[in-house]
This record gives sequence, structure tokens and C-alpha cells, in this order.
Amino acid sequence: MANSMYRASILQSQMHIQPSLSSRNFVPKKSNLLCFASSQFNPVRSEVSFCIGTHLIPHPNKVERGGEDAFFVSNFNGGVIAVADGVSGWAEQNVDPSLFSKELMANASSLVGDEEVNFDPQILIKKAHAATSSKGSATAIVAMLERNGMMKVANVGDCGLRVIRKGQIIFSTSPQEHYFDCPYQLSSELVGQTYLDAVVSSVELVEGDTIIMGSDGLFDNLFDREIVSTLSIHSDVVNAGIG
Amino acid sequence: MANSMYRASILQSQMHIQPSLSSRNFVPKKSNLLCFASSQFNPVRSEVSFCIGTHLIPHPNKVERGGEDAFFVSNFNGGVIAVADGVSGWAEQNVDPSLFSKELMANASSLVGDEEVNFDPQILIKKAHAATSSKGSATAIVAMLERNGMMKVANVGDCGLRVIRKGQIIFSTSPQEHYFDCPYQLSSELVGQTYLDAVVSSVELVEGDTIIMGSDGLFDNLFDREIVSTLSIHSDVVNAGIG
Repeated sequence: MANSMYRASILQSQMHIQPSLSSRNFVPKKSNLLCFASSQFNPVRSEVSFCIGTHLIPHPNKVERGGEDAFFVSNFNGGVIAVADGVSGWAEQNVDPSLFSKELMANASSLVGDEEVNFDPQILIKKAHAATSSKGSATAIVAMLERNGMMKVANVGDCGLRVIRKGQIIFSTSPQEHYFDCPYQLSSELVGQTYLDAVVSSVELVEGDTIIMGSDGLFDNLFDREIVSTLSIHSDVVNAGIG
Repeated sequence: MANSMYRASILQSQMHIQPSLSSRNFVPKKSNLLCFASSQFNPVRSEVSFCIGTHLIPHPNKVERGGEDAFFVSNFNGGVIAVADGVSGWAEQNVDPSLFSKELMANASSLVGDEEVNFDPQILIKKAHAATSSKGSATAIVAMLERNGMMKVANVGDCGLRVIRKGQIIFSTSPQEHYFDCPYQLSSELVGQTYLDAVVSSVELVEGDTIIMGSDGLFDNLFDREIVSTLSIHSDVVNAGIG
């Protein structure tokens, strides 16, 4: 039951870069990794591509080794953004939790144009995971933008992604976990998950959409409404990386 | 930052119908419309299709005319489910808010196999909206399942959809609204939204997934965790329609 009729016409979407999220003014309680991507209109070819900024805030206790999150961005096709979050429990076994996530993202980055990957984020996760030899495990999310505006997403665990359009979140991923604080995870061990456990989804983007991708360190520290309100007061997605 | 390594192997998905949601035991505060759909495995053809149950609970004040929600289900291709919610504000202008939503769904139902629709939920909304002559407006969501497991969704306003896999919500739509209680809406008036304002997304389903679709009357009255916990104690999605 919706009560109100809409009486005013809405504005057409503009060909501009949407506001970006700056993280300067909040103190992270956990590690935070943000990827910012804004779809940009190419008026000549009528195609879209990401305009990307990134920002990494390690957990205060993990600053020395740069935190356990890793990411990569690429301008291949319409653009690729990905985040992985190393599972911290490995430290109890004297394994640096950042090694697996960093190698996973490095492998994904080098495989992004692979013919067998065929611009499929689930296959990219499959091949990057298979190529990763470090001990450990990580959650991971990959989003790939096709030039026609279709963004394909594959997600294993509790990294996440939001799409903001005209000041509203219009698309969200959902986290997967076995139980509290134990997310689905790609692992060096056989008991972990694989690309087959990824949630595979897609959403049609339009010019001006803003995409926020991050580890659970972002989404556990900020409500969605805080992400949206922060975006509303910043205008350049690229500057988000200059934290 | 995720703390726990996963140490046990997960069960493979089963070829069974997932639990369904029964609404017998809760009192609606607003009108509620539920569509239940569970993906079912066809072992001969390796294709999936919906197994569908429906249930409609009109707002207590609107029982006489059956509420303002409308829906249709179809077994075309892998299956189609759709919900529309008439905007109640039209009653102030002596317009029955249910007429628009009911005609919209009737038109969508008759157009579902249309060649121009081409099994595209956004185009189905376009053509059903164009064919609707009643005065009024409605929010609407349409989900279409292809035999390979890809479910395509088009959504205008604050109807919604959840996909539950192994006891967790793995996919959700997000509502769109202009301001509180004024959702994006397909309208008989020019100031309303159109199929171009739909959020278009898709998700790859696997055998045993359960899909919950409803108007805001469902999602405003139940938290997601309540939907999941209710599902966990019921075993037959079809019986959900026998309220």
C-alpha cells in the first residue's frame, strides 16, 4: 500500500559524474576498503565506462602490513573493480591473512583479459582462485561493466556492492556466511568455497550511477543511508582515492 | 575483516522444493501480497522452472473490494511472477486504486508470450502499461525465469523480491521512492514513471532456491530475518497459496 500519488515530473539523468564518497572524517572500527566507480557517458560511441577512485583504510591494529584487504581496478572493456578480504583467523596459525587476498587480486588482475574468462566475473574468480598458491582464505567480489551498461557481479562471502541512482540505492548485493563472522570464503583448503558458490547477478546501469564496492569493513561501519548522505555532499568520484 | 575460517564442507544443493512461507499466523498491518516461487530441477532436460504458490491478504480496511494489490503468475518459459500495488491516494479523487493495478496485471498476463516482449520484463512492463486505460497508478515488479536458471527482474517502485538459498537471502531488490510513502509508480498521468525508470537486474538461480515476491505490504510488515525463519519451518511452497 503506497499512499502518495506522484505529481511532479522527474529530471532526466544527466551526463555527469555522480558524487563520490570521502572517508576522511570517520574513524574506522574495522578495516575498510572502498572502491568507487561512476558510470560515464561517451556521447560519441553511446557507450558507458567506469570512472574509478579507490581508498583503503587498514584496521588500526593492522596498519603495519597494510591491512588484509586487497583490490584491483581495470579499464578493460567498460571497467572491472574487485575487492578481496583476507580472513583474519589465519593469523592464529601464523599465516599472514593478507597474502591470500593480495595474491588472489593480483591473479585476477592479470587474468582479466583472458580469453577463457570471456568477461565473466564468476570465471575470473575460478581462474584467479586456481592460480593462487598462498595459504589462507578470502572473501571476494568482482564487478565487470560491459559497454552497453550491463554490470555483471560475482560475489563469494561478505564483501559487497551498492549502486546509487539519483540519491537512492537501487541495487545491493547480499552477504553469505556460514554463521556469525564466518563468511563464505575462497580458500587454500578443500573445505572452503569455490566459484560455484558465488552469487552471480547483474544490473543495467545508466549514465551517472555511482557504484560503491567494499569489504565488510565498510558495510559493517556505515549504514546504507550514511553512504548515500556522504555521497550527496561530494562531487568527484576520482578524488575519493585521495584520502 | 572476517574472523573465522570455514572448517566444514557445505552440503551440495538438493533437488527438492524449498520451504515455503505461510501467512496464517501473522496479522497484517497493511495489505500484503505474497508470491512464492521455488526453482525446481528437471533431471531429464537439465532445466529449471518455478513451482509457484500465491497468497493475498488485503488491508483490513479494504477487504470488501479485495485490496489494491494485484498479481499474475504464468508457466511460460521457466515461469513468470508479477505483483502490482495500486496507489491508495487515488481514493481521495474517488478513483478505485485497485482498478489500475488489476488492469496492469491482466494486460501483463495476456502479453507475457508476446513476440515483441521477447521474454524481457522491462518490455512487458512497457507494453502492459501502454495497454492500461484505467485511471490511477501502481508500483509493479515482474520476474521472468529462463530455463537455464537466469531470472530477470524489472521493478518500478516499492514492490520487492528476495531470493533465499540455503537459509540465507542472497538477492534482494531495492525500493525506489520520491519521498516517504510516495514510490516510483506507473501512472495514467504523464507525471508518473515509465518502464525506462525500472531497475533492471538479474540473478542466476540454482535448484532449490526460493523466491519471495510481494508488495510493500509484505516487506513493511516483516523483517527479512522473519521471512527466512518462517520459510525454515514450512516445506511446501505450493501450500503457501492455501492461506
